[in-house]
Amino acid sequence: MSTIEDVQRLIGERDLHALRDRLIEVPPVEVAEIFNELSDEERVLIFRILPRDHAAEIFAQLEVDIQKKVLSGLGDRQTARLLDEMAADDRTALLEEIPAEAARQLLALLSKEEREVALSLLGYPENSVGRLMSPDYLTVRADWKVREVLDHIRINGHPSDSFDTLYVVDGSGKLADEVDIKEVLLASPEEEVSSLLNFTFEALDAHSDQEVAVDLFRKYDRPTLPVVDSAGNLLGIVTVDDILDVQEEEVTEDIQKLGGTEALEEPYIKTPVSTLIRKRAHWLVVLFVGETLTASAMANYEHAIQSAVVLTLFIPLIISSGGNSGSQASTLVIRALAIGEIRLRDWLKVFQREAITGISLGSILGLVGFLRVTIWAQFSPIYGEHWLALAFTVFISLAAVVTLGSLAGAMLPFILKRFRLDPATSSAPFVATIIDVAGLVIYFTVAMILFAGAL
Amino acid sequence: MSTIEDVQRLIGERDLHALRDRLIEVPPVEVAEIFNELSDEERVLIFRILPRDHAAEIFAQLEVDIQKKVLSGLGDRQTARLLDEMAADDRTALLEEIPAEAARQLLALLSKEEREVALSLLGYPENSVGRLMSPDYLTVRADWKVREVLDHIRINGHPSDSFDTLYVVDGSGKLADEVDIKEVLLASPEEEVSSLLNFTFEALDAHSDQEVAVDLFRKYDRPTLPVVDSAGNLLGIVTVDDILDVQEEEVTEDIQKLGGTEALEEPYIKTPVSTLIRKRAHWLVVLFVGETLTASAMANYEHAIQSAVVLTLFIPLIISSGGNSGSQASTLVIRALAIGEIRLRDWLKVFQREAITGISLGSILGLVGFLRVTIWAQFSPIYGEHWLALAFTVFISLAAVVTLGSLAGAMLPFILKRFRLDPATSSAPFVATIIDVAGLVIYFTVAMILFAGAL
Repeated sequence: MSTIEDVQRLIGERDLHALRDRLIEVPPVEVAEIFNELSDEERVLIFRILPRDHAAEIFAQLEVDIQKKVLSGLGDRQTARLLDEMAADDRTALLEEIPAEAARQLLALLSKEEREVALSLLGYPENSVGRLMSPDYLTVRADWKVREVLDHIRINGHPSDSFDTLYVVDGSGKLADEVDIKEVLLASPEEEVSSLLNFTFEALDAHSDQEVAVDLFRKYDRPTLPVVDSAGNLLGIVTVDDILDVQEEEVTEDIQKLGGTEALEEPYIKTPVSTLIRKRAHWLVVLFVGETLTASAMANYEHAIQSAVVLTLFIPLIISSGGNSGSQASTLVIRALAIGEIRLRDWLKVFQREAITGISLGSILGLVGFLRVTIWAQFSPIYGEHWLALAFTVFISLAAVVTLGSLAGAMLPFILKRFRLDPATSSAPFVATIIDVAGLVIYFTVAMILFAGAL
Repeated sequence: MSTIEDVQRLIGERDLHALRDRLIEVPPVEVAEIFNELSDEERVLIFRILPRDHAAEIFAQLEVDIQKKVLSGLGDRQTARLLDEMAADDRTALLEEIPAEAARQLLALLSKEEREVALSLLGYPENSVGRLMSPDYLTVRADWKVREVLDHIRINGHPSDSFDTLYVVDGSGKLADEVDIKEVLLASPEEEVSSLLNFTFEALDAHSDQEVAVDLFRKYDRPTLPVVDSAGNLLGIVTVDDILDVQEEEVTEDIQKLGGTEALEEPYIKTPVSTLIRKRAHWLVVLFVGETLTASAMANYEHAIQSAVVLTLFIPLIISSGGNSGSQASTLVIRALAIGEIRLRDWLKVFQREAITGISLGSILGLVGFLRVTIWAQFSPIYGEHWLALAFTVFISLAAVVTLGSLAGAMLPFILKRFRLDPATSSAPFVATIIDVAGLVIYFTVAMILFAGAL
């Protein structure tokens, strides 16, 4: 029987003891998934019977709208307990998502200490490192013995604390160094903490953007990093699991932009259709208006089209090939820039690579196009008497358009980054639109030359 | 002074003590970056002076081609030391990247025990969990006291071991449970390990695909997961940092596919141009051949084009709008599927959302297109006497093509996933190509009806 069926059966039978025991076995993420399938009453019921710390952990994993429903079903006392038990950073995430009035009411339910923590975290700007901070860490003194450190952990530690790294502070709360729990565990009990220190450490600034933290975690490969104020006082820590969430969100936003949509703030399936339309319409209309230039460009060649309608047959083929090669180049370069494989200063190297790649790909496609026209022309009168001129027009235009596509696709992300814009904005649709107009001009110019008198 | 300048100055001055001290302060990732700027001799010099464990850590961070150069500069004795000191999973990564003959030579340099470990890890299939395994963990027994566990760690632990989780095995090596180091540290020294256990744990299968491990780590939010054989014996552990590397590679491959390229095996900038051309030509040619259908489709409407050349002006506009909306929808759906926001069974919900979104977006673009034609027609004779028919043709076609684009873009990833293909294959260029052909047919069909006798 699946976990969800099991849980629903136990709810149906009102066998609350068995239900509680069953839920405790299941990892919080999975319980949160099950919650999507339950009614509001069932959710509230579950929160009433779960042990406090377990309830807080599960609650932190729920979607904000389900969190709100659960809170409105619980009494003030139980809400207060649940909030008090939550990790401070999870609580901050909840408070920043709900309406100000609801947040005010919830804050009122917190104990004085927890309220102070919540307010201080909320005092940092959105998307700042401060919002990710957790106060759940352990500090030690440099003159303690390892034995004393272990006693301190046993007596003052709490299961929700991060234990990987202990923070060494001086009497005034200034961060002096950090020490890996590993080193403490491997050291003799009588050794002094100071002998384990090297007084070099990396720390985050609470006001920095969360992306700075992502980069630092990537660089230093640490489970936690300390956050300090400008005076070097330890304010809190950031743990790698929160960073992973930030990172996943960033990747999702980048991918959405690559697809030609404004980044969504919520998961796709939770985003109201009206928001989805708005976020997509914006770019679609911009691209559409850009693309109307193709109509203007083509209007200049109306006479040529009139003389050789056969030219029009290859318009979609030519411009889409340029768009496709541009999409390949821009996507590769955007991703390589995003993960630091290449930097701004590498632009010339990339330009040279894309020039060779573009010319090669253009020649390949040009050849395929050339063969397509010449072979067809042997069996069908469709391409008329000027089929050879057409074949060469297709060949030359494809080679030029695909090369241009690769170069433009590869260089646009650099240009955007240079001007401190997000390289991911130069999405496949964006590059394709630019190439479409240029592609038409190239195609008709080549045709005018090769068809000479015929047009 | 930047670290790199500092290091180069110290190398220049041959101040090896200062150089060593300076390098030990810098995180291994940063040293690895500096290595890109150094000559082969300078790299080998650095490896001669670094302490062994530090050297191994830095070595693991280097690119494989730099690793090879360093190894060929060091003597056999030093190479053997370096390899012996490396973490087993990093060594496996090196051995699987270099040519078989070089790998054989390196294996010969390993100590007997390390060679056995390396060979056993290499015995697992590429991209399997086995290749990620590390033997650096600590096992304990259920009947030990917490005090004994701490003594065991201090005596038998090694700085390269993972300490977050201790593995409880029975006399035959079978994994019985895992225990968080946190629980050990918070427990009284006289407590027995068995009192900390709940005998539920998640384990990986060495032969599973690494993607299974990524999913399990995402779900359970653990720093390490154990790997067991079919009999439940503990074979090794996988740590979350290796999983993050796998995950980043997967995201990069997905993004590359979204851009219409085959996934690259190496970083973009390290990929030989010939490989880049091959990987891109494949899809470009496939898309090109698909796109030649547009020429065939248009050939059917040659007569209509002849009668109203003005129709051709809007071809790029119509088909690219369909492609753009398709690109948006497919990118959103592919990403949502990849991070588990939606599943196969959600296809109908997504279909409904995209139907509404597509019709709305199509109407918006259609209206813009309609206005463009009607307004232009007031000031210029370019659209001829049938401008109103043209305006309606543009409106209706855009609405239909954009709706179709959204639906096709959203459904293709589901269809691919249903047939166990990678949804990311339905890239923006792929969807655009499909829509181009359909878009032309729609456009000319609508035109034939609305222009009635005129064509």
